[in-house]
Order: sequence, then C-alpha cells, then structure tokens
Amino acid sequence: MSARRLDPASLAAGIRAGDRAVLARAITLIESTRADHRQTAHRLVQELLPATGKAVRLGITGAPGAGKSTTIDALGTHLTRSGHKVAVLAVDPSSSRTGGSILGDKTRMARLSLDPDAFIRPSPSSGTLGGVAAKTRETMLLCEAAGYDVIIVETVGVGQSETAVADMTDFFLVLMVAGSGDELQGIKKGIVELADMIAVNKADGDNIARANVAAADFRSALHILQPRSPTWMVPVITYSALTGAGIDTLWNHVADYQRKMTASGELTARRRDQQVKWMWTLLEERLAARLRGDPTVRGKVRQAESAVAAGTLAPTLAVEEIASLLGL
Amino acid sequence: MSARRLDPASLAAGIRAGDRAVLARAITLIESTRADHRQTAHRLVQELLPATGKAVRLGITGAPGAGKSTTIDALGTHLTRSGHKVAVLAVDPSSSRTGGSILGDKTRMARLSLDPDAFIRPSPSSGTLGGVAAKTRETMLLCEAAGYDVIIVETVGVGQSETAVADMTDFFLVLMVAGSGDELQGIKKGIVELADMIAVNKADGDNIARANVAAADFRSALHILQPRSPTWMVPVITYSALTGAGIDTLWNHVADYQRKMTASGELTARRRDQQVKWMWTLLEERLAARLRGDPTVRGKVRQAESAVAAGTLAPTLAVEEIASLLGL
Repeated sequence: MSARRLDPASLAAGIRAGDRAVLARAITLIESTRADHRQTAHRLVQELLPATGKAVRLGITGAPGAGKSTTIDALGTHLTRSGHKVAVLAVDPSSSRTGGSILGDKTRMARLSLDPDAFIRPSPSSGTLGGVAAKTRETMLLCEAAGYDVIIVETVGVGQSETAVADMTDFFLVLMVAGSGDELQGIKKGIVELADMIAVNKADGDNIARANVAAADFRSALHILQPRSPTWMVPVITYSALTGAGIDTLWNHVADYQRKMTASGELTARRRDQQVKWMWTLLEERLAARLRGDPTVRGKVRQAESAVAAGTLAPTLAVEEIASLLGL
Repeated sequence: MSARRLDPASLAAGIRAGDRAVLARAITLIESTRADHRQTAHRLVQELLPATGKAVRLGITGAPGAGKSTTIDALGTHLTRSGHKVAVLAVDPSSSRTGGSILGDKTRMARLSLDPDAFIRPSPSSGTLGGVAAKTRETMLLCEAAGYDVIIVETVGVGQSETAVADMTDFFLVLMVAGSGDELQGIKKGIVELADMIAVNKADGDNIARANVAAADFRSALHILQPRSPTWMVPVITYSALTGAGIDTLWNHVADYQRKMTASGELTARRRDQQVKWMWTLLEERLAARLRGDPTVRGKVRQAESAVAAGTLAPTLAVEEIASLLGL
C-alpha cells in the first residue's frame, strides 16, 4: 500500500464517509502482521474510537448443519430491508490452518453478498484465537465507524471461539436444530452459559413438531439455570431460515434485549468489562509472544511444560525459572 | 520457625512419616508470603512430588444451605470407617477479607474434626483467588505425600472459585437442595459445565418426594448437554447428610468414575492438563504481581485500565504502552 493510503487520518476520513474500498483496505491493514502496519492500525483504531459503539453487536454460533449461513443471509436481508446497514464478520481460528475462510465462498450468503447495505468480511487468518479475535474486534470498530449499525460476528465454534465472540458482542445467539428422529442434538458444554437466546432452526414442513419439542426441552433445561441477568430471561424460539418464518421474532428479541439492557445500564457495563478483559487478554498474548519469540525462553518453556506435564517438575518451580529468564 | 524445622529434607521426611504436626508446619510454610519461605516451600513440594498423585481428589461445592459441612462430615466419616485417610481442604478467597476461614469453626464438622484419620485445614487467606488456589494445590500435594488417599477440596463458590477447585480435582461434586415448595433452586451458571455429579441433599422425612422431583428436573436438564467425556454420564442422585442415607451411593459413583477414567487414560490426561494450566496461571499471576509491584507500571496500568473502560483509549494502544514499560 502507498504511504498516502496508509495515512491514518485519510483512512479514517474514508471510513467515516462509508467508503467500502477504504474500509476493506483499512481492515487489510488491521490484519497485517507488519510492525509498521500494526502501528498505523493502532493509531487508526484510536482515531475512530469516538465514532464506534453505536451498533448492535450480535454474536452467532451453531453446530455445522444448524444453518448459520442461511440464517445470517435471511436475517441480514430482513435487516437491510428495514433500513439497517449490516456487517458480517467471523472468528474462525481454523481458517489460519486451512488458509481459506468460512466466509470465502460468497455463495454461502447468496442474497446478502449482493446487498449494497451489507458488508461481509471473512475471518482473519492470523494464527492464535486471541490474534484472530483481536483483529475481528478492531474490524468491528471500523465497521461501526463506517456506519454499519448491526454487526454480526459468527463463529464455527472451534475451541474457545464462542467465548471469544461472546466477549466482543452484546448478544450471543446459539442456533440449534431438532435432531433427526427422536435424537435431540445436545448443546455443546459451555455454550449454554453464554447463550442470550437459543433459536431452533428448520421449523418448517413436517419438521415443525420436532422443532417445537426440541425448543420445549431446551426451555426446561434453561429454567433450572440461574439467569445471568435479572433483566433478561433467555428465550428459546423456533424459526426457519428457509421460509423466513420467525426471523422477525428472532430479531425482535435481540432489539428487546438491547433496549432493556441499555435502560438497566447493563449493556454499558458489559461493554466496559469486555474492553478491560480484552486489554488483559492482549497483554497475556504479548507475554505469550515474548515466550515464543525468544529462543532461550522458548526452549525453557517447552522443557518446563513437558516436565510439568510429566509430573516431574512442580509448576511453582517451573514458573520461578521462566520468570527469572523474563526478569519478572 | 527455626532453621532445622525449615529444612526441606527433614520436613519431607516428617510428612512422609505421616507426622501431623510436621504436615501442619509445612502447610504454614506453604502459606507464608516471605520470600525465603516461598523458596523453601518450592523445594519441599519438588522433593515430595514423587510421593504425590495417589489420592482421589474430590472437589465439592454447594450454595449456602446445601449442607456442605454436614455432607463432608458424613462422607469423611464413612470413608475413614472403611479405612481411608481423609484430608479436607478449602478454597475460600473471601477468607482473606474476613481474616477468618470457613473451616475455622471445627464444630462445622463435629465428628470428622475429632477423627484421627482425618486432617482438616482451613482455606489459606492470601489475597487473590489464584494465590489461595495455588497454596491449596500445594497443600493437597503435601497431604498426599502424608498418606491421605482422599482429598476433599470444598469451596463456597465465591467468584471463580468453583473453576479453581475443578481445575485441581479429579471429580467435581455439586450439592443442591430441593427448594422450599415448588421453587426449584437454580444451578449457578457455569457450574453445570463443571459438575461430574449433582447430589440433591436433604432427601429425608417429608422432603424425599421434593428431592426426587428436583433430581428429575436436573436430569432432564443435563441430558440435553453434550457430556464432557464419552466415558462418564453425569449422574444426579439424592441423599441425606442428616440420616446418612445415600452417602455410600454417593461415594460409589466417585470411585466408579475414578476406575473408569483411570482405565480410559482420561484421568491421567486431566491431571496433566491441570498441571500445565496451573503453570500458566502462576506465570500470569507473576506478571500481574509485577504490574502491581512496580509503582510506575502500576500507575500506567491503572490509568490505561480506566481509559479503556471509559472507551477513550483503544486496548491495543494501552497494551503497547504497558508492554513497552515491561520490556515485553
């Protein structure tokens, strides 16, 4: 990229003006691992910060086959039709391995990918989950500054990616489908704790009854869990991304949540906590990078880790040794 | 303590010989924050490491009123009667604030506290949860080296203490009680993910029916969650710490779990992962201590944290500034 294009001020101006090309270029800058690019990216994000935070941040996860793409395509189209500008981002740590991206194939979201009021960006493929999540966060801020008022962040649910997405969004939506026959698809452990809503997809045709049964089961399961917020009881709904039935209800719940949590001040608190937690995560990433970077330290860490795993070295002693190498 | 008493070798010998006085003294050393004591403690743990790992490590949590103390008293007595040596430890971060300890009052466990085959130690009161947990872990290792073959670690469930206890035990038991009337006491979020068994207490007298209903509700809730291990389906049982009814069944499940998970190799894997995770937690604690320790760094971190919370400073920039101060 030329020096002009890398000037944070002009990039920021282009983004604020809603220039998609500039936005795309800025995201590429965010995703770059080059030191000078990182510096410029930091300044850009800092410059745009005042223009961020106005969007509804919606996290979506669902097992393969739950219909994430068709749901986002239907929901996104429903939203742009009613005047919203929608950005679709993703956190997919595996994309760094495959080199590709879960959003690479535009046909995944046939209608939305052609929608001028929608902006779809594949997951960054930059190694660690922390790294991928950090870049997606910054991309989210850029999209907000560009005027997108609904940011959808999807995840395939590899490892801890659901937690990472829940930690950067206001509302975490878990998509399920009624299993074939009487077999109920179980909720991945850890996810039920993050869910602000569970939506059972494919409630269409002769599958409606099965979807309702699944929803009832999920409801009975959730009612024995203490709600995370006194303001919000986690709803369980059914819908069909195929026919579009229930998509409006799905969104109404999200909007209702945003209203209630804003009024109670919980939304502000949640975002504040997310920001601070993110800062600490980044700091830990820095430490981890330092541990990987220095050959001496890296060697010591590898050695210590295996000795600790083997039970021949006490973790406390291992940490003493590593810390002394780091001057901590 | 005198130099002799602080000699790791002689402390280790006394512990291996099952000398309760030496064990107690060694734990006091473990809990000491004095730098030289820490060093000696590290060497002691390292020296005893080969003698550890042979106990069943049982974590227990339960809401106030669930009857944790009476349950541990009944279970512990049941175990010592059948030839086990039982150590009861605790992770109670709040004890550092109150200065007291949830185990301070021996009358909490009337029978067990007088049992020569039981060793009860209050929670260390050393500030952060990480600090408290680390000391309880080391205390657990000392107790194993002293010949205790069942280590019970209880937690009141303040903040993340359940996760800390689940991360240091083989089996995490969640105690519940049937709520008064039809009101079902909800499971604290996050706990259902950790539970290896849910036991509904106070299944006695005219409360038996209510306890059974509660158990059935918990079962129906758990069946929609994907089990953490293919080897273990989380059982939901009822029992009475008061009458002792079901205490044997409760323990049989724990023993059964230990057998199955040992056979499948999952127990070894779980402990290995716990060790490594612990090492990283300790390293993060060290970094955090460094951040708190240095006045310059501390000031910068406070300032950065509030600016990030206020949304006026990008976390990435904040981390740049802190990292440069730390030379990371």
